[in-house]
Amino acid sequence: MFEATIRADRLADAVDATAALVDECRLRLDEEGVSIRAADPAVVAMVEVEVDADDFHSYAADGEVIGVDLTRLEDLVRVSDDDDLVRLRLDAERRVLAVEVETLSYSLGLIDPDTVREEPDLPELSPPAEATMSGAQLDRGIAAADMVADHLRLRVPESRRSLRIEAEGDTDDVTVELGPEDLIDFSPGEADSLYSLDYLKEMNHAIPSDASVTVEMGTEFLVRLAYEAAEAGPRVSYRLAPRISTA
Amino acid sequence: MFEATIRADRLADAVDATAALVDECRLRLDEEGVSIRAADPAVVAMVEVEVDADDFHSYAADGEVIGVDLTRLEDLVRVSDDDDLVRLRLDAERRVLAVEVETLSYSLGLIDPDTVREEPDLPELSPPAEATMSGAQLDRGIAAADMVADHLRLRVPESRRSLRIEAEGDTDDVTVELGPEDLIDFSPGEADSLYSLDYLKEMNHAIPSDASVTVEMGTEFLVRLAYEAAEAGPRVSYRLAPRISTA
Amino acid sequence: MFEATIRADRLADAVDATAALVDECRLRLDEEGVSIRAADPAVVAMVEVEVDADDFHSYAADGEVIGVDLTRLEDLVRVSDDDDLVRLRLDAERRVLAVEVETLSYSLGLIDPDTVREEPDLPELSPPAEATMSGAQLDRGIAAADMVADHLRLRVPESRRSLRIEAEGDTDDVTVELGPEDLIDFSPGEADSLYSLDYLKEMNHAIPSDASVTVEMGTEFLVRLAYEAAEAGPRVSYRLAPRISTA
Repeated sequence: MFEATIRADRLADAVDATAALVDECRLRLDEEGVSIRAADPAVVAMVEVEVDADDFHSYAADGEVIGVDLTRLEDLVRVSDDDDLVRLRLDAERRVLAVEVETLSYSLGLIDPDTVREEPDLPELSPPAEATMSGAQLDRGIAAADMVADHLRLRVPESRRSLRIEAEGDTDDVTVELGPEDLIDFSPGEADSLYSLDYLKEMNHAIPSDASVTVEMGTEFLVRLAYEAAEAGPRVSYRLAPRISTA
Repeated sequence: MFEATIRADRLADAVDATAALVDECRLRLDEEGVSIRAADPAVVAMVEVEVDADDFHSYAADGEVIGVDLTRLEDLVRVSDDDDLVRLRLDAERRVLAVEVETLSYSLGLIDPDTVREEPDLPELSPPAEATMSGAQLDRGIAAADMVADHLRLRVPESRRSLRIEAEGDTDDVTVELGPEDLIDFSPGEADSLYSLDYLKEMNHAIPSDASVTVEMGTEFLVRLAYEAAEAGPRVSYRLAPRISTA
Repeated sequence: MFEATIRADRLADAVDATAALVDECRLRLDEEGVSIRAADPAVVAMVEVEVDADDFHSYAADGEVIGVDLTRLEDLVRVSDDDDLVRLRLDAERRVLAVEVETLSYSLGLIDPDTVREEPDLPELSPPAEATMSGAQLDRGIAAADMVADHLRLRVPESRRSLRIEAEGDTDDVTVELGPEDLIDFSPGEADSLYSLDYLKEMNHAIPSDASVTVEMGTEFLVRLAYEAAEAGPRVSYRLAPRISTA
């Protein structure tokens, strides 16, 4: 039995964060809340989304696992107002998720979870460096790199006094240097990796500009971007594998 | 002799409402006001627009009938401010409609009315059911149906306690159920018809979200959507033939 | 040695005004300020932009001439806030312009100025007529002409009481007549010339609607549009050759 009520904007945050990487996913409906884990087709990027039972207005679940088409959920959320309450109810027999918002009742046909790409394992890693910045600051760094190249380099220089977002183009280079005064928090350590901007732009697009984003990184290391979408909003984390440096 | 002055936004309401279905039309310039009646090429949808002589700042007409290209009028209205006064004068000899707005004088070449598709007959019908709702409510119903299908079903259930907008997709269904509390007015009756969303979306696009839209309907019946664009604005009504149910 | 600091919005005004006509240009970095002169590939239209040393927060230059790709500068300005200070420093040895805005450092590879299309000579002309109008008024005139034709005619009628912007289409004509009350300033004189709307639309796009634009014109004469982008902003002037009348 799964039956829950949630504000439309919180549901939107969770759906948009996941849809940045995949079109369909598994929802795990546990007592503690709803969780999603998915990897893009190339298994270069992963997303993990958690909505706590407490972030719902009402919540009851028994550990069900369902497969959903995120495009449909995105459409549904788009016709709702932010503070509309969305009622979700699993009809296991008919294999549909019944969604109700105000006068609207939507019957979302479920996907067999076994046909959804397998959830990736999320390795427990000890990232040597970590910085927390505003979504706006991250956005500026990604936009700057995007002017000259299709990948960016995240690097902590030897002085360990800043985090550098760097990109090299054919004729132009760009660096965004974030010192302690530009960061909410900073635990420097050895870090120097290249990442694809295509993925970072998709992730960045889903990150609210007023969110605090924690960036965990290392040398030729998976980067992790973690944030909470809003007060009492879903917890999201993206992971992105480094590109092999061709330098 | 036709010579009239009208606010740019009222002219825009009349032009946009008509242009939702056709590119050119006949204007009937009678003593009581200007009226338009037009059907789309497939004669599935019809529009009727009436601007009363009283809704003009000044008005004089002798029953002339002219043919106009609505695209040109749409462009003209777009470069005007809402409260600009638009002066219209028919120059029958040169076969042009002289349009003046502020510093701008536009000479609109007229189309031979005989070459414009004939005006449809508007059958007098007695629709079994009628509901009045806000443009915003109608918009939400159409957007919801559009998520899953290319047509929607307007239906009054047997209980006659609500109006239902329904759509069935391959995997998903959606229903918007409007009870008396969601409607401005409701005279229930037997009604169950399917309509093409392509047409409804065009009509809906022209309907202001704060207008009160009266929906007349029946079973396998022409639907009529009627509204007044604004206080002292044009009266518009759309008619749309039902699709033959394939169920 | 060139080293200067300027508000991002003033730099944007200069870059956008130039980029309306060309993708790359020469910057002359003199003691008095930065100046640009460029013609479009067909040498039908020319732009001249001057940013006085006083309009910079700090300024030092020795008469250097550099070639720049305007697309890159446009991107750079777009990621800056209006009141950000942009620091420019020429690194002649590495042939780059170092641009710094807040946390961002951009190294802009320069173009050999000899490979940039030659700067046009700007003939000293004595235009018979001159009118000053708001950018919004000019915009309306260009939008009106664009509804019916691909060129417009600037004309002072024999009465010399107004400036007329005229366009003739296949079926429709349009005239915007600007009298002394619509103009900020007017020195009438003989003027009657045709100009390509393609060029005028590009120029108009870069002109702020609240700018005062001085239009100098004559008969089959180069038109000159001159304005100051904002208080302490760059001075811009466009010149456009007349089309040979086919009438």
